[in-house]
This record gives sequence, C-alpha cells and structure tokens, in this order.
Amino acid sequence: MINNNVKNTHPLVHCITNYVTVNDVANILLASGASPAMADCPKEAAELTSIANALYLNIGTPNEMVLESMLISAKTANKNNIPIVLDPVAVGVSKFRKHCISQILKESKVSVIRGNISEIKAIALDQKSNSGVDAQTEDQISSENINDIITIAKNLSKQTKAIIAISGEKDIICDENRCVVLSNGDSMMANITGAGCMLTSLIAAHVASNADRFNATVTAMAQMGIAGEIAKELLLESEGNSSYRNHLIDTIAFLDTDKIKEKIKYEIF
Amino acid sequence: MINNNVKNTHPLVHCITNYVTVNDVANILLASGASPAMADCPKEAAELTSIANALYLNIGTPNEMVLESMLISAKTANKNNIPIVLDPVAVGVSKFRKHCISQILKESKVSVIRGNISEIKAIALDQKSNSGVDAQTEDQISSENINDIITIAKNLSKQTKAIIAISGEKDIICDENRCVVLSNGDSMMANITGAGCMLTSLIAAHVASNADRFNATVTAMAQMGIAGEIAKELLLESEGNSSYRNHLIDTIAFLDTDKIKEKIKYEIF
Amino acid sequence: MINNNVKNTHPLVHCITNYVTVNDVANILLASGASPAMADCPKEAAELTSIANALYLNIGTPNEMVLESMLISAKTANKNNIPIVLDPVAVGVSKFRKHCISQILKESKVSVIRGNISEIKAIALDQKSNSGVDAQTEDQISSENINDIITIAKNLSKQTKAIIAISGEKDIICDENRCVVLSNGDSMMANITGAGCMLTSLIAAHVASNADRFNATVTAMAQMGIAGEIAKELLLESEGNSSYRNHLIDTIAFLDTDKIKEKIKYEIF
Repeated sequence: MINNNVKNTHPLVHCITNYVTVNDVANILLASGASPAMADCPKEAAELTSIANALYLNIGTPNEMVLESMLISAKTANKNNIPIVLDPVAVGVSKFRKHCISQILKESKVSVIRGNISEIKAIALDQKSNSGVDAQTEDQISSENINDIITIAKNLSKQTKAIIAISGEKDIICDENRCVVLSNGDSMMANITGAGCMLTSLIAAHVASNADRFNATVTAMAQMGIAGEIAKELLLESEGNSSYRNHLIDTIAFLDTDKIKEKIKYEIF
Repeated sequence: MINNNVKNTHPLVHCITNYVTVNDVANILLASGASPAMADCPKEAAELTSIANALYLNIGTPNEMVLESMLISAKTANKNNIPIVLDPVAVGVSKFRKHCISQILKESKVSVIRGNISEIKAIALDQKSNSGVDAQTEDQISSENINDIITIAKNLSKQTKAIIAISGEKDIICDENRCVVLSNGDSMMANITGAGCMLTSLIAAHVASNADRFNATVTAMAQMGIAGEIAKELLLESEGNSSYRNHLIDTIAFLDTDKIKEKIKYEIF
Repeated sequence: MINNNVKNTHPLVHCITNYVTVNDVANILLASGASPAMADCPKEAAELTSIANALYLNIGTPNEMVLESMLISAKTANKNNIPIVLDPVAVGVSKFRKHCISQILKESKVSVIRGNISEIKAIALDQKSNSGVDAQTEDQISSENINDIITIAKNLSKQTKAIIAISGEKDIICDENRCVVLSNGDSMMANITGAGCMLTSLIAAHVASNADRFNATVTAMAQMGIAGEIAKELLLESEGNSSYRNHLIDTIAFLDTDKIKEKIKYEIF
C-alpha cells in the first residue's frame, strides 16, 4: 500500500496557493523530490497547468484573479488527465470561500480534497465556521464521533468522486467504499502556519507519482505525520515553532517507502 | 502593569498585511498563543473581521484592492468594538502610502499605531522619508531629542485617540497623558525583515487579550524586545540573520508574564 | 577584480519580485548589508525607484499589475541612472512571461540579466521550456557545450547591452567581449526555492555598490556560490533544505572581499 515514488518521478506540481505559506509549500515539495511551480495569473494558468503532473489548488488567500486562474487551470487539468488536489482553507468562514469551492467542484472533477474536519463539514453539510483557519473545538475527532465523520466523508466522496482526506489528531482517508485512519503526527504541527497547506501539496506530489491515488494519499499523509513526530524529537529545549517548521521540512527528504512503512500507524475502517 | 494573557484567551487576529513578512507574522502570532487569519480580499473582509478579536492593518505592500479591504474591515471592527492596530510601514516614502494611512485614520478609530520614529513623524508632521522601510539616521532617538519625540507622540495620540508606540533602540509608548520608555531589544533585530511587522502583530494579540490597551501595548513591546535579547544569546558563531529570525519567533512562546516582568527595562516619563 | 562594497554603501534595492521567495530575498539583502524595499503597486512604483540605488525585477509570479509597476519603475530607473537587474524566472514556460521580458527589454536598458541556461536560451533563441522554474536537463552546461553557451551569452549581451549572468553547476558571466566562469556552489542550492532569486538580488546590491558592474556581478555570483559551499559544511546529518536555506542566508553576512578572494574558483574565457 505504501509507496513513496516522488523522488523517482520528480513530478512538476503547479500550485495556485496562498501567499502566507507559499514558500514553505515550495520547499516541502522540493524536499519530497517534486518540482514546484507557483503561478496564479489567468494569463498563463492554462500553459502552466498543461506541462504539470498535478494541479494544487489552495484558497488560503483567495481573490477574484486567483479564482479565475483556478477555474482555467482546473479545466485544463481535467482535459489533460492531470490530477487536481484541493485544499479548501477556512471554507466555512466566508461566502466568497464557499463560492470558490463550489465553482471549482461544479466546473471540474477533483481527485483529492484535503481539509480539517471543520472544512470538510463546511463543504459536506454547508456548515458555517467561526474559528478562522483552525478546526472548531466542537469538531474534534473522537472515538464517539469517528463513525459519523467517516459517513460524512464517504458521502462527500460519493457526491464529488474525490478522495476525502481529513487531517487532525487522527487522519481519515476515504473514498466511497474504503477508509483508512492514521494516528501519526504531533500536536506541534498545529503551532505552525502552513502544516495543512504543506500536507495537501505533498498529496499532490504523491498523486502525480502513483497510479493508485488512494494509496498515494495515504502515503503522503503518513509521510507528513511521521515527519511531524521526528521533527518533535529533533526539537531542542530552546526551540519553538519556527525551528519546528524547519525540522519538519528537512525531515520529509529522509522519508522513503521503507521508513514510512516502519513508522506508519494505521487502521482500516 | 505587565500581563501576558494571550495564551489564555487565544485571540483570533485578522491580519491584512504585506506579502513579504506574512509568514513570520503568522508564526509569531501562533508562538504567542494567538490564532492568525490572513485575508485581504474585499469580498470577505467584513466577514473575517467580524469573527476576529483584533484587526491588524499593515501597509507594507499596499495596493488598491488591499486598501479597499482595510477600509471595509476597519469599519466592521469599529462597529463591533474590535480593536484596530495599525502599522504604517514606510508611510513617508510615497503619496499612496500617505493616502492609505489618512483614509484609514479618517474613516475609522484606531486603537494603536506602531511605527519607527520616521513613520510616526511622517504621520504627525507630514514629513517625507528617503530611507525605505528603515528609520532615517537623523531620526534616531537620543537623550537630547527624546522629550521632543514624546511631545510629538502625545500630540498624535491626542489627535487620533490612539496609543502611539514608537520602536527603536528605545521603545516609546504614549497616550495623551502617559509615557513609558523601554530599553529592551538587540541591534540584530534591524538585520531581519519583519521585526516591526511581527511586533505590531503581537500588539494586536495583546490588545485583544487585555482590557487595558496601554498596558497590553507595553507588554507586547517588552515581550518582543526581550525575545530579541534572548535570541541573540542563542545565536551560534556561524549563525546570522536567518537563524536569528527563527530564535526570535521560537522565544516568544516562552515569555509569560513572570519572565517579562523579570527582564523588562522600563522608565516612566 | 573582487570587491564586496555592499556593507560600506548600504544600497537601497527596490525589488519588484515574486511572493514565493520575497522574504528570503529581503533577508539575504539584509545579510549582505543592503536595504531591501519591496513594493509592486503602480501607484508608488516611480517614487520608490527614484530613491533606490538599484532596481531588481523578477517575474516569478507575474501579473498585469506587477508588469505595469515594472515598466514604470524601469523607466524611472533609466531616467535616474539607477541600474536595473533582471531575473527572467521561467520565461520559457508561458507567452505572458515572454511578453513581460520583451516589454521590459524594449522599454528600458537593463544592466544585468541573470538566469539559468534555459531562461537565457528562451530570451536569446526564443526557445520554449517545459521544465517549470528549473533548467531543462538537455540544457545543462558541460565542457562540450560551454563555448556555444558563451557565444549565445555574448550575442545576447551585444543585443541588449546588458551583462549576461548564467547560473548553474558552472556560473558564466559575459559581456560583449569578456567572459568569466565560476565553479563555486553546491548541488543543495537546487533543493531550495529562491536560490536564483536571492542570487539576482545580491547582484543588484553589488551593482549598486560598485562602479564596475561586470566585476560587481562576478563578486555577487562568487559570494553566493561560496555561501552555498559553506552552508553545506554547516549542514548537520538530520538537516535538509529548510536548514540549508537558513545557513545560506546566514553565511552571506560573513563573506567580505578577503573571504571571497580566498574561496573563489574562476577561469577567464
């Protein structure tokens, strides 16, 4: 199931993403073995996507120009059988973010949607969110609600035909029929900006490198969670979130298939 | 007077800021215990601000779309009693920056303005600047001119009803009647981009967390200055400004009320 | 020939650059002793450029507003004898990037163009590229093709009157008559985002600080290559590309004229 093929295929990932974490996304893609291409201008969106191996869409800092590029690139990706991986950052906090996501999902077929539980619920159940970019406390995944969440994810997968990847203390990866739950990761990941954005970009790199997109998504999420654990072990007593971010990106480069297989903690639901 | 309440209240800080240092601002807010939300699109400005505990406006890379968002968000903040903290980056270098600041100050009531001495003089005295984002040499605060500078700050506070925070070798915090001068900090802070932007964002987090906004501003500026000193102690011989930035952000997380009280160097003027 | 004068002159470098690596560019300029001013709004482009000592143009994330600013600033720079240093990021991948570069070269006189070999060929030979921001494999500089590449560079220099700087495993600096080839650097530089953007910004700082622009360009490229080597020596076993970026920026501050003279590996062609 686990297969990290990114270093062998060096996929070109066209990223239309936010300006907050774009540098971290580029560096983690490079660490993984992928080649990032950041470009968000409608005048070149189609050309950039057409030479890419995956398209990564992230609405972290959306505006009308960026949305226009996303829609052009998504159409181009679909026409060329290039997988689209979507990060619906904070989709529940504004009508405009909702509009961006529904336009993308209406006008194109997306391969993977990765969000936290509040973001996935906002799409699946049209639920509002008041907690900015983080998951709302009442949305935390627990043993009591995990089956409900899996049902929501499977239904959203049925409706969109996308793999649904929910990150949190536990990570949930679903399609219509299957579900894998991962328990890797570290709480420090919530103390840096961009952990979610970086994770979704890794999914794009893996999906571009493996024909089996479900397993590619599981591999990417495991790689990120394990990197989060190792980064924590590397953290000195005087170090905090900025150093943690560096350790996290650094570590991605060392996590090949064998290392991920050794460290992954998963259950099949 | 000193009270670091950010870790207890986890304020959501809506930031409309420049794309140069936005990642550092997000990470220092997270280090402080706050939750950053970066968003600069007019289509969602009001919604974002309305769920925030503070609004942070920074004109580091202004343009017409960003200004429009700032004005919408500032109005929303005033209507909802959400404090606005303003960073008038390099306001003296262009007519457009001047225009941004005067529009914001005309259309809304700001709680705190934090700038270097050249920026504060540019607003208070309509003075031009030719030194980019840094304070001009002839503007450096000294024992000879500190009383003149305090008078300028108090007058600007009287005029705007905002707390005026001037950062430099010495930090000056004034309202119409009070003035506190801090002597924390390290010269390395001038060798990284974003020290000012990060400082102002910390003020926003503290002002959102403490009813006494004057003391909140003093606490935030002391926290930043002390972090600058500790970051310097952590710096290895081979390290320079990029590592210093990491140490600085890392250190913020460790500075609670007691630690700030222990290290603060202040005078009441 | 080698003369690092940046720390003595503290040039103000106006940068109109991409949002991916802008923070790294600002920090490496500060590390070098220069003062960065990032601003890309047409409403203030002329004012910013007119107080600068060099103008740095980088088309990493171009759009129409940014192009408008570049053209205004380029004109202002020419009128005031301020050198322009141009980074044609990924110019071969889209018609819009081609358009940006031809407009800049048509409407202004540029002092230095720095690109990888695929980017320089895209300008000189109107060649398309399918490899994103990296040089195409078939374009790698070798002992077999180096004379052909030097001929291309000299011709482009003749046509544009700009110094042509090509970075890669070997760096080539040409004007119409001269050519210097450097062999400093480390392969890790290709594993971080922004090595090229940072290098070009250093060239801008050096060109602003030295009357001899050819030697200034050689000095800047040597400084970056040597920093790349030292950063590699500093890299711990657990460290990867994110830490390497920090070491690289850190190291720039320590490379004065003597240190560069000691470490430079050059040939005159």
